[in-house]
Amino acid sequence: MTGKPIPEEVVQIASDIKNMRIRGAGRIARAGALALRIAAEKYTGQNLDDFKEYIRIVADYVVKTRPTAVSLPNAVSYVVSPLLRADSIRDVEEAKRMIIENAEKFMDYSERAVERIAEIGSRLLRDGDTVLTHCNSQVVVSVIKAAVKQGKSVEVIATETRPLFQGHITIKMLLDAGVDAVTLVPDSAVRSVIKDVDKVIVGADTVTANGAVVNKVGTSLIALIARERGIDFYVATETYKFSPYTVWGELVVIEERTPTEVLPEDVIAKNPYLKVFNPSFDVTPPYLVTAIITEIGLIPPQASLLVLEELYGRGAIHDTIQTVEEE
Amino acid sequence: MTGKPIPEEVVQIASDIKNMRIRGAGRIARAGALALRIAAEKYTGQNLDDFKEYIRIVADYVVKTRPTAVSLPNAVSYVVSPLLRADSIRDVEEAKRMIIENAEKFMDYSERAVERIAEIGSRLLRDGDTVLTHCNSQVVVSVIKAAVKQGKSVEVIATETRPLFQGHITIKMLLDAGVDAVTLVPDSAVRSVIKDVDKVIVGADTVTANGAVVNKVGTSLIALIARERGIDFYVATETYKFSPYTVWGELVVIEERTPTEVLPEDVIAKNPYLKVFNPSFDVTPPYLVTAIITEIGLIPPQASLLVLEELYGRGAIHDTIQTVEEE
Amino acid sequence: MTGKPIPEEVVQIASDIKNMRIRGAGRIARAGALALRIAAEKYTGQNLDDFKEYIRIVADYVVKTRPTAVSLPNAVSYVVSPLLRADSIRDVEEAKRMIIENAEKFMDYSERAVERIAEIGSRLLRDGDTVLTHCNSQVVVSVIKAAVKQGKSVEVIATETRPLFQGHITIKMLLDAGVDAVTLVPDSAVRSVIKDVDKVIVGADTVTANGAVVNKVGTSLIALIARERGIDFYVATETYKFSPYTVWGELVVIEERTPTEVLPEDVIAKNPYLKVFNPSFDVTPPYLVTAIITEIGLIPPQASLLVLEELYGRGAIHDTIQTVEEE
Amino acid sequence: MTGKPIPEEVVQIASDIKNMRIRGAGRIARAGALALRIAAEKYTGQNLDDFKEYIRIVADYVVKTRPTAVSLPNAVSYVVSPLLRADSIRDVEEAKRMIIENAEKFMDYSERAVERIAEIGSRLLRDGDTVLTHCNSQVVVSVIKAAVKQGKSVEVIATETRPLFQGHITIKMLLDAGVDAVTLVPDSAVRSVIKDVDKVIVGADTVTANGAVVNKVGTSLIALIARERGIDFYVATETYKFSPYTVWGELVVIEERTPTEVLPEDVIAKNPYLKVFNPSFDVTPPYLVTAIITEIGLIPPQASLLVLEELYGRGAIHDTIQTVEEE
Amino acid sequence: MTGKPIPEEVVQIASDIKNMRIRGAGRIARAGALALRIAAEKYTGQNLDDFKEYIRIVADYVVKTRPTAVSLPNAVSYVVSPLLRADSIRDVEEAKRMIIENAEKFMDYSERAVERIAEIGSRLLRDGDTVLTHCNSQVVVSVIKAAVKQGKSVEVIATETRPLFQGHITIKMLLDAGVDAVTLVPDSAVRSVIKDVDKVIVGADTVTANGAVVNKVGTSLIALIARERGIDFYVATETYKFSPYTVWGELVVIEERTPTEVLPEDVIAKNPYLKVFNPSFDVTPPYLVTAIITEIGLIPPQASLLVLEELYGRGAIHDTIQTVEEE
Amino acid sequence: MTGKPIPEEVVQIASDIKNMRIRGAGRIARAGALALRIAAEKYTGQNLDDFKEYIRIVADYVVKTRPTAVSLPNAVSYVVSPLLRADSIRDVEEAKRMIIENAEKFMDYSERAVERIAEIGSRLLRDGDTVLTHCNSQVVVSVIKAAVKQGKSVEVIATETRPLFQGHITIKMLLDAGVDAVTLVPDSAVRSVIKDVDKVIVGADTVTANGAVVNKVGTSLIALIARERGIDFYVATETYKFSPYTVWGELVVIEERTPTEVLPEDVIAKNPYLKVFNPSFDVTPPYLVTAIITEIGLIPPQASLLVLEELYGRGAIHDTIQTVEEE
Repeated sequence: MTGKPIPEEVVQIASDIKNMRIRGAGRIARAGALALRIAAEKYTGQNLDDFKEYIRIVADYVVKTRPTAVSLPNAVSYVVSPLLRADSIRDVEEAKRMIIENAEKFMDYSERAVERIAEIGSRLLRDGDTVLTHCNSQVVVSVIKAAVKQGKSVEVIATETRPLFQGHITIKMLLDAGVDAVTLVPDSAVRSVIKDVDKVIVGADTVTANGAVVNKVGTSLIALIARERGIDFYVATETYKFSPYTVWGELVVIEERTPTEVLPEDVIAKNPYLKVFNPSFDVTPPYLVTAIITEIGLIPPQASLLVLEELYGRGAIHDTIQTVEEE
Repeated sequence: MTGKPIPEEVVQIASDIKNMRIRGAGRIARAGALALRIAAEKYTGQNLDDFKEYIRIVADYVVKTRPTAVSLPNAVSYVVSPLLRADSIRDVEEAKRMIIENAEKFMDYSERAVERIAEIGSRLLRDGDTVLTHCNSQVVVSVIKAAVKQGKSVEVIATETRPLFQGHITIKMLLDAGVDAVTLVPDSAVRSVIKDVDKVIVGADTVTANGAVVNKVGTSLIALIARERGIDFYVATETYKFSPYTVWGELVVIEERTPTEVLPEDVIAKNPYLKVFNPSFDVTPPYLVTAIITEIGLIPPQASLLVLEELYGRGAIHDTIQTVEEE
Repeated sequence: MTGKPIPEEVVQIASDIKNMRIRGAGRIARAGALALRIAAEKYTGQNLDDFKEYIRIVADYVVKTRPTAVSLPNAVSYVVSPLLRADSIRDVEEAKRMIIENAEKFMDYSERAVERIAEIGSRLLRDGDTVLTHCNSQVVVSVIKAAVKQGKSVEVIATETRPLFQGHITIKMLLDAGVDAVTLVPDSAVRSVIKDVDKVIVGADTVTANGAVVNKVGTSLIALIARERGIDFYVATETYKFSPYTVWGELVVIEERTPTEVLPEDVIAKNPYLKVFNPSFDVTPPYLVTAIITEIGLIPPQASLLVLEELYGRGAIHDTIQTVEEE
Repeated sequence: MTGKPIPEEVVQIASDIKNMRIRGAGRIARAGALALRIAAEKYTGQNLDDFKEYIRIVADYVVKTRPTAVSLPNAVSYVVSPLLRADSIRDVEEAKRMIIENAEKFMDYSERAVERIAEIGSRLLRDGDTVLTHCNSQVVVSVIKAAVKQGKSVEVIATETRPLFQGHITIKMLLDAGVDAVTLVPDSAVRSVIKDVDKVIVGADTVTANGAVVNKVGTSLIALIARERGIDFYVATETYKFSPYTVWGELVVIEERTPTEVLPEDVIAKNPYLKVFNPSFDVTPPYLVTAIITEIGLIPPQASLLVLEELYGRGAIHDTIQTVEEE
Repeated sequence: MTGKPIPEEVVQIASDIKNMRIRGAGRIARAGALALRIAAEKYTGQNLDDFKEYIRIVADYVVKTRPTAVSLPNAVSYVVSPLLRADSIRDVEEAKRMIIENAEKFMDYSERAVERIAEIGSRLLRDGDTVLTHCNSQVVVSVIKAAVKQGKSVEVIATETRPLFQGHITIKMLLDAGVDAVTLVPDSAVRSVIKDVDKVIVGADTVTANGAVVNKVGTSLIALIARERGIDFYVATETYKFSPYTVWGELVVIEERTPTEVLPEDVIAKNPYLKVFNPSFDVTPPYLVTAIITEIGLIPPQASLLVLEELYGRGAIHDTIQTVEEE
Repeated sequence: MTGKPIPEEVVQIASDIKNMRIRGAGRIARAGALALRIAAEKYTGQNLDDFKEYIRIVADYVVKTRPTAVSLPNAVSYVVSPLLRADSIRDVEEAKRMIIENAEKFMDYSERAVERIAEIGSRLLRDGDTVLTHCNSQVVVSVIKAAVKQGKSVEVIATETRPLFQGHITIKMLLDAGVDAVTLVPDSAVRSVIKDVDKVIVGADTVTANGAVVNKVGTSLIALIARERGIDFYVATETYKFSPYTVWGELVVIEERTPTEVLPEDVIAKNPYLKVFNPSFDVTPPYLVTAIITEIGLIPPQASLLVLEELYGRGAIHDTIQTVEEE
């Protein structure tokens, strides 16, 4: 142990992530990077090995606030790995500069990625297209907004997305952005509207090494119907949601949320034979995905490994996983 | 015109059907039969042709209270058609007796049909099976109750069934009946639980001549997933939900319900670019249905025509459709 | 042998069928019935057994003019079988009357069947539907015309149908009938237009006992694409195209037409290594057919056996096949 | 109780069925009919009700020798049901005559059914076809023999059919019958040879009300592969293997055979953690079956209900099931 | 602006491409490279920036002659991008040399690519194989010729390919090359011959970033049938038909050709309600493609991104797209 | 020719591989590497070109002992290619060192790869999973053992794997390793147990450039069933079983084994019309494979090209193929 305590600001950020005051894969990732920048800035020691150990501890601390999200450890790995791998760093100043620069690069990158995806995704939409989306994805909304800004007429069908009705946020964002034909449907009605749909676009929580897409529960249903009807099913997502851990066989943990989102607590309490199953996500197999729209281009899901190698390099993936495993 | 007014009790029943005080395909059908029995009992004239014309008018009047449901015209046709087709009836007394007897036979038949389906359907369940169901079907609940009564351990997974949450009624009925493992899931989670499901059983609103099943919206999604996973998908329904009109090409009208079941009225009112699409039913193609469990046995969906012929005879179907068309 | 020659008029009709002066399954069938009526009228003998033998000979003679079409032997069987099966016929006069009446009943039936199919099929079309059809089917055109007459707006996409371009006849018939949106596409473009198609309707040359549909080559391609896209695929056809012979395992012979429809004779002649394969028909499996629209109603293809039994009775099928086999 | 003991010959037949000295669905069914004929002949009482009760007891006794096979109870029902249903029988003599005649009719029918199926099935084979079959079915071999007798050149690929290698019997029967191109393959190689296969033909143990085919384990694999490759998959079977019990929801019991057919007893004994699963049959869903070749014609699997109704009548099915259930 | 006019020879080449005097993706690409070589040779100025601007203008000019073909901009990008990206070029002479060398390298490469694909593709063919092809692809013909040259016996089935009958060119090329079993079929007959086909090989107009193949209309039908029957479907194409623009979301424009290829002008003119839809290409999704045969090896369609990166590098793709967008 | 004879030890190893005394893809590959190390060590000349030629000859000699296995030429290529490609080697000593080091690196690598795959694969298994496997794969057994060692409860269903019953070896290895729930099933029963299976894991003999998996006959059946039921199908294999030759169109030769494994020699001998088809392997298309578990991570089958490039580099693949082709 280095003796250096974790700075208060970092503790605060970690708490905000944990308690859902900071939400959404992108914002969480950027907050993680920010925490590391602050940790580096606040560090006062001069021993390089101590600093590295300190950064490792902070990194672990931040990652553990949301252990199932992949964007957070990816952000942290992006900021921290180059230092841990580097041989040529000579002193703490240089090491601090490296962390700070990487954190800023990540935050900047993350902010511009959405913009880039919107640009690429909007090209896929034709004037007059009807798009079906599920849940609420900032990236998907950006794609549609970009297309509308280009003067294309786009209709959107949004699902309610039980139990938390994120579809309501989606329709509000779209209406605010000037989309002039928005239809809300119950989740069960997706097959009833599919005849009118030209393209499906959804976001992603995680993309695995073999191109499976983990996203809001119900996504895989829509993918299945889209294939049944020969409709293109696109996933729009930043590349830092691609999970390097899945390369090494790690299974993506599907978070199970509280039953009280579905039934009142008293109903559950007085019925011992009654259970509620309320998973956050489901898994869409790669063969149902037409392509993934990322900030580095449109990629087939089966090329996700290629994306991971470009992002982390094979060595980096090793390091990342080892960092996590050594704890 | 016969000059005979429609009796008050019949008017009352018709009103109750129209205003949803009488609900559920079975109850509606029985009420229709009852109305015809009353109409016959109250008739006081002596001219046979007048009586036939009068019965035709009452029949039309009753049928028009719910023009999209198939069980109602089927019940009415069951009661009325034999008279309209018969050559050997000599006087009004005989004709009245025919109507009254047929009405009673139908009501009796309808009540016993559910029991019979429960008996047949319960044989399909093995001890330890997990059954997935959607919405709330009295017939499906009866099947499960019968299996449990036989001492089989059966787990049930029920969907919420947005927007009206009929799944809550289903789980209550099952728990009350002593089913000791009931799980409620959001509609979107059906593919997440499918690995644990041994059989799907749902009810039906209408079965068409070519074996398509019209049922609560979301049914066809589940059928699609069941086929994707090689799981048997059963429909449990009385035969009077088989539509003879579809033999003649009539399309089943899919009722669209009010948007306020999905979004508050003011939200819809202030967003001119926002629509809600809230269909009651969807259509499951016959090739996704393993078999239909009816009171006359287990039948493949493609044999629905055989059922219709047995029920009505080809001639009866002709008459039925003509009765309806002549109006 | 009866010694009675085949009447000249019958010889003429047979020749006209053989040489394609009489074309189209319906017209051929009616001509066959007419030939038998004439044969009966012209018969002058008084021995009942001789008459039956004579009718058997004429029937065989007529059937052999087009050995692969099923509508012709079906028409002949309709006219002839009742006599050959009957025990109660006492003399030639009664027998002649039977043949003449059956022939007239068949011709009348055939003419009204198209009308009835048009009526049923038109109900399946909604206002605004786009229908894809292939080749030229009188029945399909009648369905569309009936829908248009009902005030529905219907768009039609017709294939060229190489090599004989029957699509040109189809578009002419539709335009003449006042259809105001007709699109002609090369056969290869059917998957390019399928997104806009609501329903496919084609005719049939033969329907087999297990519900397979033999129709113009290319039909099964369209059925495959329709299933890939979840689009209903209807076959519109008179029931006398259902083949009772296939109940007994007879394979439907797929006529192969002359290569000169595809390539000039001299090109073929000078290239010994070059062949042309030019089949008239292909076979669409029943699981790709939504329903068959017949004059006796909409039926699932798997119920074709039911149709055959209703038309011929099991006994009649036996007799039919024996009549054919005994030759 | 009637006081009449079950005749010795009947006891002997029952014992032979039970101990597998009489094997094969056809032979077992005929032996059951024979037992009833003998029982009727040996009866000496004069009270009609006593006789009916006696026949009921014998019928139950015979059926219980092989409770999972459907051909046996069907044969017994064929012989016994008309008596139990009849109102017009006046004395024991008449009743005995009825049983004896029905038994003989059944035995005769059964023997001729195979011949008839061979005739129908052989028409489905073209000169030069390659047929894949599984296990050993007398009916399938008869079909191929009939085609060869007609001068068609037919190649046959037969699976070994582990664990009892019934494929060896099949190839012997075919070679003895003069088939001059027989190939034996391990069960696992069916997908490796499928490119060369024109048609698959297998037998059946039971056909259910919705057209599912219960047959030797491995059959459903072949059906799946045949569909993957667009190859026709035929089932050849007598109609008395269609199960009327399944109309009422009865599940077909899949017999599990002894593990020692798969592993030596000592290996199993000394490995408490090792199990062997050795089912006799599996279930092929109707949508994978092109058609069923029966002695009453080629039928789509979904028409199996039609076959059952023709064989037993709806009433007969009722009686049959009640006979069995009342025990 | 540089003040330098576009040389006359370049104008001539551009005109020949535009007016279809130069046809076929390969020849067009080589002509584009040649035009740039000539432009460089003819340039007389000494200012490097002026030269770069001049080359950019010529490149745009050439690309615009056929805006939908991907091989042309790819060829131009191959020749031009290295110069626009390079930092180390010091003078116009060096820059001219670079353009000239790249142009020659491209032309040489393009010529040898077909040869290489033929070599690789021919290894996929076994002695006795039957190959189905569509339209006329120089590359596919080369593959078959190479296999035949190796002494393999190969049968070819070629489609007519309406409306321009390019199949006639294909059969002529094959017969001239000594293929001794060529069969021509109407486009609609592909499913009728598929049982005899061992492999499908077609060319490509464009391959997208996610592995979809844009090729002559009808290609996707054949791919669908090939998958239905488990037959390998290969695409043979040079890598410069892989579109880097699709990485950035650009949709491939499907050229629509003149209706007069399908119907005479006067027929169209006098029928205001008649349209002809005559698309050049359709899109085959990657999951229907077994592999793409390129000059750099056999690749799965989902690896097309890997090919694009190898060809252009990620940076180069950026530049390419920017070059195009800046106009 | 160098005049140097092939050392006796190398001859011995080659003979052991040829005569199956050395078996299993891994052991064969390691033996090949060892042979080359010995060959280098024994070499006594001083001319570098002679040495290269000598090594080329030894490599060819070793590879030819099992021409259809891909692991052997891959091992040899791994050892030999760097030398043949290198420009900077100055003398024989350096060249020998290169060969010896590469051989040792390969042997070491191969031994650790299985361990690494077990580690990755075991992460894919959840506590309580049931795994189905086919034939006997050391790698698959290692995966299961690793999961069990981690305290996970895993049930295994193993197929017999006719004709050589390698399933018996698999169950023995698993029971010895402490797996406490192992079930052996006949190959034909895989669809009967699939409802209980959570994951399928099999090994591989060869993986092709487009991700097809060549493995023990029957593997592709299981893959087909797994897809029918939505069950993940994994292949566990070292990367040196990926075939670089398939990049250049080489087809994988499916070894056909002796018929006497299936039938006694005398049975075959006396039946001239009887053949046995006994292929070792079959081909599972990439779209049926969820992912391939390799020592470098979990990869989608369509990324196999990426693996090949990483292993060999494109240049290396060229050299490898040329080495082989030049013979």
